[in-house]
Amino acid sequence: MTAGMEKAGHRFPVRVYYEDTDAAGIVYYANYLKYAERARTEWLRAAGAGVGAALKGLIFVVRHCAIDYLQPAHLDELLEVETSLLAAAGAVLDLEQVVRRDGALLVRMQVKLACLNEAGRPARLPAALRAAFETHLQSQECA
Amino acid sequence: MTAGMEKAGHRFPVRVYYEDTDAAGIVYYANYLKYAERARTEWLRAAGAGVGAALKGLIFVVRHCAIDYLQPAHLDELLEVETSLLAAAGAVLDLEQVVRRDGALLVRMQVKLACLNEAGRPARLPAALRAAFETHLQSQECA
Amino acid sequence: MTAGMEKAGHRFPVRVYYEDTDAAGIVYYANYLKYAERARTEWLRAAGAGVGAALKGLIFVVRHCAIDYLQPAHLDELLEVETSLLAAAGAVLDLEQVVRRDGALLVRMQVKLACLNEAGRPARLPAALRAAFETHLQSQECA
Amino acid sequence: MTAGMEKAGHRFPVRVYYEDTDAAGIVYYANYLKYAERARTEWLRAAGAGVGAALKGLIFVVRHCAIDYLQPAHLDELLEVETSLLAAAGAVLDLEQVVRRDGALLVRMQVKLACLNEAGRPARLPAALRAAFETHLQSQECA
Repeated sequence: MTAGMEKAGHRFPVRVYYEDTDAAGIVYYANYLKYAERARTEWLRAAGAGVGAALKGLIFVVRHCAIDYLQPAHLDELLEVETSLLAAAGAVLDLEQVVRRDGALLVRMQVKLACLNEAGRPARLPAALRAAFETHLQSQECA
Repeated sequence: MTAGMEKAGHRFPVRVYYEDTDAAGIVYYANYLKYAERARTEWLRAAGAGVGAALKGLIFVVRHCAIDYLQPAHLDELLEVETSLLAAAGAVLDLEQVVRRDGALLVRMQVKLACLNEAGRPARLPAALRAAFETHLQSQECA
Repeated sequence: MTAGMEKAGHRFPVRVYYEDTDAAGIVYYANYLKYAERARTEWLRAAGAGVGAALKGLIFVVRHCAIDYLQPAHLDELLEVETSLLAAAGAVLDLEQVVRRDGALLVRMQVKLACLNEAGRPARLPAALRAAFETHLQSQECA
Repeated sequence: MTAGMEKAGHRFPVRVYYEDTDAAGIVYYANYLKYAERARTEWLRAAGAGVGAALKGLIFVVRHCAIDYLQPAHLDELLEVETSLLAAAGAVLDLEQVVRRDGALLVRMQVKLACLNEAGRPARLPAALRAAFETHLQSQECA
């Protein structure tokens, strides 16, 4: 990527409701993983019906997740999860997902996903998904 | 039951953790349904291995639930869920479940469960379960 | 209301994600209460900024909730929660909330809410909220 | 530590209920963070009443968390969370928490906690807690 280039991942809005908060008055730390999964699901959906069809019978499972909690979020705030592809190789996807409020960075996650078939064995990422990623990465680089 | 007799349902302890609370500083209203399901599971387990075996391939689903929220519970409190059988007929169980803290009544639930087989059709309650209930009700009446 | 009149409550979409489901492959029964609270929050927000301002320092707590589970919802389905005001008197709101998928009724809830002030005492519903309800009920009757 | 020595952290049992699982039939990935927080709470409680008193007005917040998901857990399984102190310095605790089923390692977490006072500022770990850690670490080394 060229210097000064903004990363342009997939953006997904999340509203904070009572269910998300805890007695400390902030979003409970485990719930950012829920937000992240919602965002990943919509990111895949945004990749198009062709990708959806190619993913039939496949499932993504989280193998590793590293989370930095920088600032808390509170009841009723409107957050945004940005999902960016870092790498796709074999049966593995590496993503970065960040949660922001009005542009301020609250939480940063690195997530490693394995693609499994119905028998629970690693399955190479479908060609349609790889193609969608190529386009996606391309558009990021040109953005 | 004779006057002054204490009802003697199955008792299950629950500790309140951060995950259970919300920004109002109390246990989030949906989470009492989690406590109730944990208690029902342990109530069935307490009915003995024979009942467990008889329940293989069967599943209980909640058909109706009515909940009175009388007093709130807070972080770190130790609660107790008492589960009492009200009626068992055909494929349906009627339960009362109450949540207490140091004897004080916080939440009262009435729960109607349907017993389903693997095809998702109503299934008569297994004889072993009915027998366990008979004993259970008997012991309540004699307590 | 005149015969044949459709009730026209507030509508709120909910997507089912993994976090909402359980090992039975359906939405976990407690999670409909989360959907219902999200919908109530957006229903109040839709009542306008004047209502929001009038509600400062007030909080709604659920006193009673009765839920009929008619049909299950599944992963990735798009649901809709419709919230209708049944009655508003003193410090109490009575609502009906139903969850539908493509028009089919899945879950029906009756919810009684108490309005409390910061001291935790019952507080009469603010005039701005009553006014919003009047308009709302009016528009329902004329719809 | 001497060779062959078992690490002896604090052990906390967790039963898997429906609320914990998802439509893939396994424990939902965010829920291990709930298990971990329950275990940390009981680990601190086990440190004794003196520590509890010293922690009044202080709160621990998670700053960083890295999780390896090695094997899934399923409905009704009995798990164990083992919590071990890695380091305690200034206002920061470093913990390792592992989740096992019958000795098999399922999930491994590294958690960094910051100790904050009521104003939300970093607060040095109380002396009573440090003393409890000394004893704790000592007993580990001698085990």
